[in-house]
Amino acid sequence: MSDQDDFRKAMRNYIYSVSILSNKNIDGELNAITVSSVTSISMEPPSLLVCINKSSRIHDTLIKNSDFCINLLNKNQQEISNICSTDSLYDQRFDHDKWNTQTIPFLEEAQANIFCSIEDLVPYHTHTIVIGRVLNAISNDKINTLSYLNGKYV
Amino acid sequence: MSDQDDFRKAMRNYIYSVSILSNKNIDGELNAITVSSVTSISMEPPSLLVCINKSSRIHDTLIKNSDFCINLLNKNQQEISNICSTDSLYDQRFDHDKWNTQTIPFLEEAQANIFCSIEDLVPYHTHTIVIGRVLNAISNDKINTLSYLNGKYV
Repeated sequence: MSDQDDFRKAMRNYIYSVSILSNKNIDGELNAITVSSVTSISMEPPSLLVCINKSSRIHDTLIKNSDFCINLLNKNQQEISNICSTDSLYDQRFDHDKWNTQTIPFLEEAQANIFCSIEDLVPYHTHTIVIGRVLNAISNDKINTLSYLNGKYV
Repeated sequence: MSDQDDFRKAMRNYIYSVSILSNKNIDGELNAITVSSVTSISMEPPSLLVCINKSSRIHDTLIKNSDFCINLLNKNQQEISNICSTDSLYDQRFDHDKWNTQTIPFLEEAQANIFCSIEDLVPYHTHTIVIGRVLNAISNDKINTLSYLNGKYV
């Protein structure tokens, strides 16, 4: 087994929350992608990061000072998670009726919504580390977070 | 409620795995800290990142090209998680008998161990984003990952 396979196997032991990153580009086009790599960086200033593959459709719309939302999903939102992680379903991403797209697009009734402005972009080989300054955030009082472990929702 | 409080509350909805980052400095001194921000970046090359507070004791030992281990904890390792996250217990960090400290220090019987070399350090306000190139990794076949949600182990 290669070191890469060993690393992949080790990462399958991590449990993580499932989120959708959503934004609107300068032409008003909506975009969204399911992500697992959301991590808070600091509380001063409130900030988080997410790693985005350079080959993903949303990648080039993530430009400095543009806004995005991290929508943390709840256990009832597996379907939208699947849609936003499947390239062949790309055109269906905003068919879901719970999107609010007036300003920064966000999923209503998510577990949490964290609105951010891109402060920095750190390229790293196949991916870009997107650093977001948090603008504001909404949480659902009842915790029912969708999570993922060893290739399955839990 | 401030935007910072809203963000803190939103992040409490995230479930995450608990890991300990361990290393040995150039004088051979051992160090370890409990971390929640481990995220894989890319598989090509195998790489991950972790965010470390600049005020933590381990911070200045994390220098470019030095090695560290990410020890993903299992549900039986809450005690070592507490020790390595409590400053008043700092001297007890390596009392635990499961440490192997011959080369890169690592916790035996962890859920997984991911050995890395620091490829880059990205300072961001109070924290540094530590980018590690994965050298090799070990996993336990039975998944029993220690996780944390809303201020409690789960």
